[in-house]
Amino acid sequence: MNTVELIKKKRDGFALGVNEINYLVQNFTSNKIPDYQFSAFLMAVLLKGMNTAETAALTKSMLESGKVIDLSILKGLKIDKHSTGGVGDKTSLIIAPIVASAGIFVPMISGRGLGHTGGTLDKLESIPGFRTDLSLSQSKKILKKCGAVLIGQTKEIAPADKFIYALRDVTGTVESIPLITASIMSKKLAEGIDGLVLDIKTGNGAFMKSNKDSIELAKSLIHTAKSFNKRVITFITDMNQPLGNYIGNWLEVFESIKVLKGELKNDLYFLSVKLAGAMMYLGKKAKSLKEGEQKAKNKIENGQAFKKFLEIVEMQGGNKKYIIDPDRYPKTKHIVKINSSKSGYLEKMDTYKFGMASLELGAGRRTKADIIDHKAGIILHKKIGDFTKKGELICELYSDSESDIKTAEEIIHGSIYFSNRKPPLPKLIKKIIQ
Amino acid sequence: MNTVELIKKKRDGFALGVNEINYLVQNFTSNKIPDYQFSAFLMAVLLKGMNTAETAALTKSMLESGKVIDLSILKGLKIDKHSTGGVGDKTSLIIAPIVASAGIFVPMISGRGLGHTGGTLDKLESIPGFRTDLSLSQSKKILKKCGAVLIGQTKEIAPADKFIYALRDVTGTVESIPLITASIMSKKLAEGIDGLVLDIKTGNGAFMKSNKDSIELAKSLIHTAKSFNKRVITFITDMNQPLGNYIGNWLEVFESIKVLKGELKNDLYFLSVKLAGAMMYLGKKAKSLKEGEQKAKNKIENGQAFKKFLEIVEMQGGNKKYIIDPDRYPKTKHIVKINSSKSGYLEKMDTYKFGMASLELGAGRRTKADIIDHKAGIILHKKIGDFTKKGELICELYSDSESDIKTAEEIIHGSIYFSNRKPPLPKLIKKIIQ
Repeated sequence: MNTVELIKKKRDGFALGVNEINYLVQNFTSNKIPDYQFSAFLMAVLLKGMNTAETAALTKSMLESGKVIDLSILKGLKIDKHSTGGVGDKTSLIIAPIVASAGIFVPMISGRGLGHTGGTLDKLESIPGFRTDLSLSQSKKILKKCGAVLIGQTKEIAPADKFIYALRDVTGTVESIPLITASIMSKKLAEGIDGLVLDIKTGNGAFMKSNKDSIELAKSLIHTAKSFNKRVITFITDMNQPLGNYIGNWLEVFESIKVLKGELKNDLYFLSVKLAGAMMYLGKKAKSLKEGEQKAKNKIENGQAFKKFLEIVEMQGGNKKYIIDPDRYPKTKHIVKINSSKSGYLEKMDTYKFGMASLELGAGRRTKADIIDHKAGIILHKKIGDFTKKGELICELYSDSESDIKTAEEIIHGSIYFSNRKPPLPKLIKKIIQ
Repeated sequence: MNTVELIKKKRDGFALGVNEINYLVQNFTSNKIPDYQFSAFLMAVLLKGMNTAETAALTKSMLESGKVIDLSILKGLKIDKHSTGGVGDKTSLIIAPIVASAGIFVPMISGRGLGHTGGTLDKLESIPGFRTDLSLSQSKKILKKCGAVLIGQTKEIAPADKFIYALRDVTGTVESIPLITASIMSKKLAEGIDGLVLDIKTGNGAFMKSNKDSIELAKSLIHTAKSFNKRVITFITDMNQPLGNYIGNWLEVFESIKVLKGELKNDLYFLSVKLAGAMMYLGKKAKSLKEGEQKAKNKIENGQAFKKFLEIVEMQGGNKKYIIDPDRYPKTKHIVKINSSKSGYLEKMDTYKFGMASLELGAGRRTKADIIDHKAGIILHKKIGDFTKKGELICELYSDSESDIKTAEEIIHGSIYFSNRKPPLPKLIKKIIQ
């Protein structure tokens, strides 16, 4: 097979065969196809697309570049959730303990934050001592003991995805539905799961800006999951404002604790119990999504979810005292309050910019080498639809750096829009596709 | 400026500005933008196109990566011809002496053969002693003395094109009209010419397969030439069969000698005098294309063109005795005649495959490192429209290798189609655009 001919075939809009896709992925992963050829191929895929058979073949090839975790010794269904990422999206921290406390195994492999989005691993690591770099055998032990484990992508898991993603990131080829599909599914399928709940974030703080694109991605993910005989439920959910009220790593753990303890019933709570409910349904602990959601709520009410969270933290080396008494956690040197310059309804937020402001405060990474300040971030006191009097508190900024706070303040001032009339509220769950 | 953002801008179909294009070309040429980013950009250009302003800016940026030859000391107009390449296309060897003998300067920078097409430099170098690797100052001296010089692309000429072309070649990004335009024009403009005749080969042996694509390329080249205030005439000519009857380096020199001596009046002759006539017109030695063509014919009839060719060969170090008596040239070890297996009219030729057969015989290069056998090639005794009796000679194959001849024979047997009825003849000159 000839690499240039395969690039041309895709460039000219033809579908590649299974062997052709395997040839490309295997040879790129083993360094036999140079980056400059593979990036031209990726751009051709982005602009010409892939059909469902090609996407499934790409996923399979990336999956088979590494190991599939064998969880057959664990008696019970294994269900995971994946979110395409947004600002303030910390549902994994809430969902994993809820679902594990119901007797479903949750083997969750997560990522780190980059750019405007946060990452579950960074959030967990804000808990002193918490380890996400566990080996597969350690992870299996924890999973067996407490029903959930939250780790990072190991070298054994879909190495092709790692190499391909690194190249996409620097060649303008991230925003491709077949490439996103294969990247997500190759990792998730490697977890050895039976079913998957997908949360596709949609709006000005997400990778998918429009419902149309999100539905297309949902269909692509569902097709691919089904071609591997996995049960899947997809939620298309709003990301036109941050999810919940806290942005930044420890601040998001803090909010998750409040939700898990039943002390906070905001949009984060409502989405978390919906997603957890769907996992209950896929894991056959509920006969419907509705019943699953009710069971998830019960797990919060009866304290089992929070207890499970403590157990996970302990098993993964985290210091429980900060979970039991989160106020002990150190604060940033500076906390600046932003008050409204006028009266009105909060009409619109530029969520992407909120993510970037949080990054400026120290909560995120511009490049992979950046070091995160776990304490840094934003607490929102108003969200879309809330009425604000002139001078009233909108949000607080947390950072060790005064100059970074200034930068973040400027970004946020340009990211909030007010209206005299109460705006329609964004629908949190836009669509559920099974 | 950010490379990834520029890639995305082009990927999403937006036009790039002059500064953005300069940034990309300059940084790629100076190794500051890595290959893998530039190849993604090239694929985006191929699939999303460039408007005329972008194409002109790209050409300018590539031109300015090197020197523009200053020919102002030469009193008189400087006119060149460029062909997009095909099989058996040796018009440069005939045109340069015709036009130079009329008092027009022809500073011709040519390329080498790769894949199914031949290259003017390889053809010239089949003349023992002939040097094409002259320095710019040597070239200027020859140009001043005899009115024409035929050399290769030096390091000073559009180095950006050299790097970009090498990357396009291995990333499936050759077939892009703006990229082809900038590659051709950046080199031609560096020659310090006043006008240019373009020969866009069209058909199954050319890069442009359809008239539509050729007209689009013609328009792009004309637009770009005009934006640099250069006079230009474009011919769209047939490449659905090899041009002339000889394919292979020395064999093509041999045929050129016959045309220059007025001994052969085939399609090669007719096209050569048309193109030379257009150069006469651009060089103000003729008032019309028709008058130019007649003058070109006269230059052959009165022996001045052949005399000029001898002069060029001598000035560039070539051994004249092979030009004066071409039969002295060594022959290949093997010459195999291919006879027709049936009677009928030659209806169609797969010209690309004829080029590949010639390559198999030793006349071409698969990769840039391959060494050419100057004696090898094909002589055609029949062309489209000719009637052939069963057993009659169709062509002869010249090679030192018996096994290569076998391979070439097989290719050729699958590349000729016969018909019972006389087929319409391909129109040699399909269109002239001024």
